Amino acid sequence: MLRYLTSGESHGRCVTAIVDGLPSGLAVSKKDLDSELSRRMFGYGRGKRMSIESDRAEILSGLRKGITVGSPIALLINNSDHSIDSLPVILEPRPGHADLAGILKYGARDARDILERASARETVARVGVGAISKMLLKEFGISVLSHVIQIGRVSAVTKGMGFGRIQEMAEKSAVRCADPASSKLMCKEIDNAKSDGDTLGGVFEVVIKGVPAGLGSHVQWDRKIDAKLAMAMMSIQAIKGVSFGAGFDVSSLRGSEVHDEIFYEKQRGFFRRTNSAGGFEGGMTNGENLVVRAAMKPIATLRRPLASVNIRTKKKVLATVERSDVCAVPSAGVVGEAVAAIEIANALIEKIGGDSIREMRRNFDGYLEQIKRA
Amino acid sequence: MLRYLTSGESHGRCVTAIVDGLPSGLAVSKKDLDSELSRRMFGYGRGKRMSIESDRAEILSGLRKGITVGSPIALLINNSDHSIDSLPVILEPRPGHADLAGILKYGARDARDILERASARETVARVGVGAISKMLLKEFGISVLSHVIQIGRVSAVTKGMGFGRIQEMAEKSAVRCADPASSKLMCKEIDNAKSDGDTLGGVFEVVIKGVPAGLGSHVQWDRKIDAKLAMAMMSIQAIKGVSFGAGFDVSSLRGSEVHDEIFYEKQRGFFRRTNSAGGFEGGMTNGENLVVRAAMKPIATLRRPLASVNIRTKKKVLATVERSDVCAVPSAGVVGEAVAAIEIANALIEKIGGDSIREMRRNFDGYLEQIKRA
Amino acid sequence: MLRYLTSGESHGRCVTAIVDGLPSGLAVSKKDLDSELSRRMFGYGRGKRMSIESDRAEILSGLRKGITVGSPIALLINNSDHSIDSLPVILEPRPGHADLAGILKYGARDARDILERASARETVARVGVGAISKMLLKEFGISVLSHVIQIGRVSAVTKGMGFGRIQEMAEKSAVRCADPASSKLMCKEIDNAKSDGDTLGGVFEVVIKGVPAGLGSHVQWDRKIDAKLAMAMMSIQAIKGVSFGAGFDVSSLRGSEVHDEIFYEKQRGFFRRTNSAGGFEGGMTNGENLVVRAAMKPIATLRRPLASVNIRTKKKVLATVERSDVCAVPSAGVVGEAVAAIEIANALIEKIGGDSIREMRRNFDGYLEQIKRA
Amino acid sequence: MLRYLTSGESHGRCVTAIVDGLPSGLAVSKKDLDSELSRRMFGYGRGKRMSIESDRAEILSGLRKGITVGSPIALLINNSDHSIDSLPVILEPRPGHADLAGILKYGARDARDILERASARETVARVGVGAISKMLLKEFGISVLSHVIQIGRVSAVTKGMGFGRIQEMAEKSAVRCADPASSKLMCKEIDNAKSDGDTLGGVFEVVIKGVPAGLGSHVQWDRKIDAKLAMAMMSIQAIKGVSFGAGFDVSSLRGSEVHDEIFYEKQRGFFRRTNSAGGFEGGMTNGENLVVRAAMKPIATLRRPLASVNIRTKKKVLATVERSDVCAVPSAGVVGEAVAAIEIANALIEKIGGDSIREMRRNFDGYLEQIKRA
Repeated sequence: MLRYLTSGESHGRCVTAIVDGLPSGLAVSKKDLDSELSRRMFGYGRGKRMSIESDRAEILSGLRKGITVGSPIALLINNSDHSIDSLPVILEPRPGHADLAGILKYGARDARDILERASARETVARVGVGAISKMLLKEFGISVLSHVIQIGRVSAVTKGMGFGRIQEMAEKSAVRCADPASSKLMCKEIDNAKSDGDTLGGVFEVVIKGVPAGLGSHVQWDRKIDAKLAMAMMSIQAIKGVSFGAGFDVSSLRGSEVHDEIFYEKQRGFFRRTNSAGGFEGGMTNGENLVVRAAMKPIATLRRPLASVNIRTKKKVLATVERSDVCAVPSAGVVGEAVAAIEIANALIEKIGGDSIREMRRNFDGYLEQIKRA
Repeated sequence: MLRYLTSGESHGRCVTAIVDGLPSGLAVSKKDLDSELSRRMFGYGRGKRMSIESDRAEILSGLRKGITVGSPIALLINNSDHSIDSLPVILEPRPGHADLAGILKYGARDARDILERASARETVARVGVGAISKMLLKEFGISVLSHVIQIGRVSAVTKGMGFGRIQEMAEKSAVRCADPASSKLMCKEIDNAKSDGDTLGGVFEVVIKGVPAGLGSHVQWDRKIDAKLAMAMMSIQAIKGVSFGAGFDVSSLRGSEVHDEIFYEKQRGFFRRTNSAGGFEGGMTNGENLVVRAAMKPIATLRRPLASVNIRTKKKVLATVERSDVCAVPSAGVVGEAVAAIEIANALIEKIGGDSIREMRRNFDGYLEQIKRA
Repeated sequence: MLRYLTSGESHGRCVTAIVDGLPSGLAVSKKDLDSELSRRMFGYGRGKRMSIESDRAEILSGLRKGITVGSPIALLINNSDHSIDSLPVILEPRPGHADLAGILKYGARDARDILERASARETVARVGVGAISKMLLKEFGISVLSHVIQIGRVSAVTKGMGFGRIQEMAEKSAVRCADPASSKLMCKEIDNAKSDGDTLGGVFEVVIKGVPAGLGSHVQWDRKIDAKLAMAMMSIQAIKGVSFGAGFDVSSLRGSEVHDEIFYEKQRGFFRRTNSAGGFEGGMTNGENLVVRAAMKPIATLRRPLASVNIRTKKKVLATVERSDVCAVPSAGVVGEAVAAIEIANALIEKIGGDSIREMRRNFDGYLEQIKRA
Repeated sequence: MLRYLTSGESHGRCVTAIVDGLPSGLAVSKKDLDSELSRRMFGYGRGKRMSIESDRAEILSGLRKGITVGSPIALLINNSDHSIDSLPVILEPRPGHADLAGILKYGARDARDILERASARETVARVGVGAISKMLLKEFGISVLSHVIQIGRVSAVTKGMGFGRIQEMAEKSAVRCADPASSKLMCKEIDNAKSDGDTLGGVFEVVIKGVPAGLGSHVQWDRKIDAKLAMAMMSIQAIKGVSFGAGFDVSSLRGSEVHDEIFYEKQRGFFRRTNSAGGFEGGMTNGENLVVRAAMKPIATLRRPLASVNIRTKKKVLATVERSDVCAVPSAGVVGEAVAAIEIANALIEKIGGDSIREMRRNFDGYLEQIKRA
């Protein structure tokens, strides 16, 4: 079982993670790890903080000469601004943030006690854990991409584009959108919101290629891999909706239009020609690409602040204005890749067992052979 | 911690559940329990099986004279048809079902080995566990409803309707839709699909009223209550999308249009006048109604079957036609209430602690007082 | 992951269990299952109740034609006496039982609310789950025995006896002791205690043969298989001590006397000639027999009752006298086999992965080959 | 729920921990934290490494101005020797260590891949987490001590000594033994073993004072607090036996000699005059001191090495001699305090709920009142 905990506040000394359950024999590339952290930082619409952070993960444990030995890996990513103890008290909770709910729950007298941890800064740790999970998945031919398909009122058109093409185009786009025309319009949409002191949300899509059929299970509610993936995606800050494949559109279609017919060829084994299911049937992967979408709400810290209440005086006030971005959907997509990679890596480990890459591969190959000849 | 396991196949002897972690001192009404099971069974669009099943739960353990003693409760719901060992082999996996993925995963040579457990018949156990969770929530003034807001192309209009009104109207509707005009159109939509040998999906909404701020937590990804709720909803058979509050619409709105401003009155404490967040901020409840939507795909067993492959011969065939419904969205909504109730009950237990209703109430009252004066 | 919950009160309708995580393709013998339940019931020193209970498990789910399909298995064992709602109130908590602690925790006003669930009657469900786990282990050449090595002042001498011989002799003994001379003395010891209105405890040993090296892990505190096994053993009613191999004796020996030297032969791979470690090193199995001991306290319900306090009047009283046994160590040993089998089966599933017996065996054989050639 | 993961190798850069689930409002004393780390390091019989390590924990997250805010706390303790990547390959697994089992499990070709993580160096992280748990317990009047009661053939006599006296005397002793005469003999025993190139084990006892009745639960096997504690103790390196109260001695006593009679006084509520149960009945605390013993095997790295096998050549060799201690029982006792404190803190949080010290105390006081008047 792959499991992890993260720690760290937005303006604390650092953000950290411990991930437990990795096999031995996995080469962990420090370069690839930092490259994932960089991918999280950029994106048109990110604010000033991004320019001062230049995230690098230190790997504190779990490797010998760059190779896993089965031990837990600890990651540490320093914050450049770690003035947490000297920052001013915040008495005006911001609508749309964890501030007020957290104040009530934890009996806090300063919203900073809450927002420091609730901040999306924490996701840098998850991207780190996700990067290692991706390295593990890669050993089994599994790759993960994300791309932005909506920002504000602008949607992308990616119909007919393959996995490789989407990945390539998204990496080139300032907003991680694989459709160049929409990409430009999204930047414009961000400019407009910015000049209005407002913020934007959007939708990103994560696609995972190469996952064999049979991860997850239909037999118990909490073993369904799509359900676990939904939890992981929804746990990303500001996500308010998650869907698979045709998603909410399935509700207005008929059965004959939705379900993916089954085909077989000796070389490929079983396969589909459509993917409305987004790669999941009955709480299991079905061998097709996994396609997950997540809807992100606009950033809750506005330059034009909303009505709030001073928690000490109980007087009506305007919510605190903190340094913030206009739109963080491209970054959220990178976080989405990470948490999805973690869940799939976990499901793979559970499915095939094994404690070393060598043992996992032996079991994996045996399973692939089995399902081809099923 | 409230946790549960279910067991049982569609045509096995029965479906069962064990739920562990209930406090002592809770009166469990057998009548209310069976009433919830009945609510799951009905709905325009359900097929023949519903008329032969008349679910009654037996409570095998955990009560003395109808009151919980802290022990786990076991529920057993008999199947009227339990011919599992004599039913014919199924070699044609049905697109949209767990059949093929399950066959590959478990090395099955008969799709029945998979579909018997993957069937939504299993949800009767979850509705039972949910019924008990609702009884617990009721002790703390928390109530749960569901209503259908879309079937096929027909959407309901419930804007401006309060909790009580929606609940009342949904209970009266053949499709559990609170808008009478749409309710009729939905039935018509179902009739049309039926006459075409086709099936329909839709969207239901669960609303939970009376939940205090502060359930769940922002501090660790897997403690976010909205993420857990998303997992629970997505674990319901045929659900392909889950959203909170304004849901996917948040992605096209601006921050100033989305976030729920904060107000305070001495009597009420903190409150909001809008609820785009659907009652969740930062992975915690914020004191407003919880509003969750789930999109259900059309039923995967069509009278007009789809293309499939015989798993033995590998020849192209038509998928098996099993007894089936045309539309199960109203029932799925009842299951949604159940799984949501379980998650909220669990989060409540974790928040306030205590092992008896009396102790829980003492802690709960203390907490309500605290957050009012916060 | 193999996991299970049990439910049921001592005088309730039945005791049940749901076990989740079994592979498909395992033949479950109803006869072997009931035979394990019988083994739990007998033993010199058991009281009247044993003669009226004749436990038979019903398998409610999870099988088709006697073979697992990967679904959870539910077991139900009826109680012959299920008068729970009409039995008299108990106001005098019995020292040594859960009564008083449970009353305080759950705010009970009747000790029966506690003792009905705390009773060792619950272990019948665990023996059922253990029986299925044993069937799984058997597929991989792993067998489990228990024998009683001490009752009161009498100890058994089994030095030099092999696995098969101990198993055979223990099954023949009225107290499940493999040493016939001690067996007789133990019966005598029980007779004496009985005539004094007193009770006895003792020590049993569980031995597991055929477990490959490498179950469990040293990398995280809660993944150590010996630690998990200690938890499982200590969770058996009345157990106050658990040890592995040389156990508490290790504390008075020197390193050179304790550690098991390592040898290698091409046919056998690595092996030891001694087993002070009881088959565990570094939180992992090391390929030798697993040897676990558990110390059981004397039964807490005495015919000559102890001082207690009436929970209503707070007056000093004598503790309630319930129907009881004089000595239950032989039965506890059978429960010990069960919980140990469950833990090892769980660790095996985690180690080798796989969802069918066929897939597990392929992975298992690959692993055995690997460690032989390591 | 309090949960934690640790990471770090013996000669890696550092050892770390993340602990999740702490309430807000707890003052964390850096001085008390380091003082616990120091207590772990010392003890007659520890070798050279101890003199070069001077452990100090850095608190990387979770605090603002020294007070918890509910966020996870990350601890980092540097290793002074972090030459892991340049240390020589080890091909001779040491009997009694994780070496061989780990090599087989993880497919390692160098025992160092295993022993670096299996080393008791890891326990420094657990002592750190335990130190914070103790601070939490202290808020509720709960204190924890450990003392050594046996080393080799020497046993301590502490009968009649109270909690405070044992604590005071143990802190003064070079071997953490509360009996000065035995303390001296233990040092002598260690000197003798040392001069023979041999090692020693022993027994330590952890006592916890001030725990209210009702932590843990009898209702499900894995909720029994004594079982959880047994797991925690057994997860400490080199522990081979765990017992509560009278421990293995219960097996040779009669019921009338063992069970702790129940008394009541208006001021104290229910209480006992004896404590054979070691504070646990029915898987719950019963209000008396918790008394746990653990047997530690002699250190497995001997100056006079044991027979082993070269994992590459398969030739018979002598096991590698690594820098090592003669006896580590006093240190293990400190680790025992830590892991016991974590378990009890966790059970307390579960019992009384609450997310701030203030809320926990309100619930705690309410509960104490309840059980007094029960």
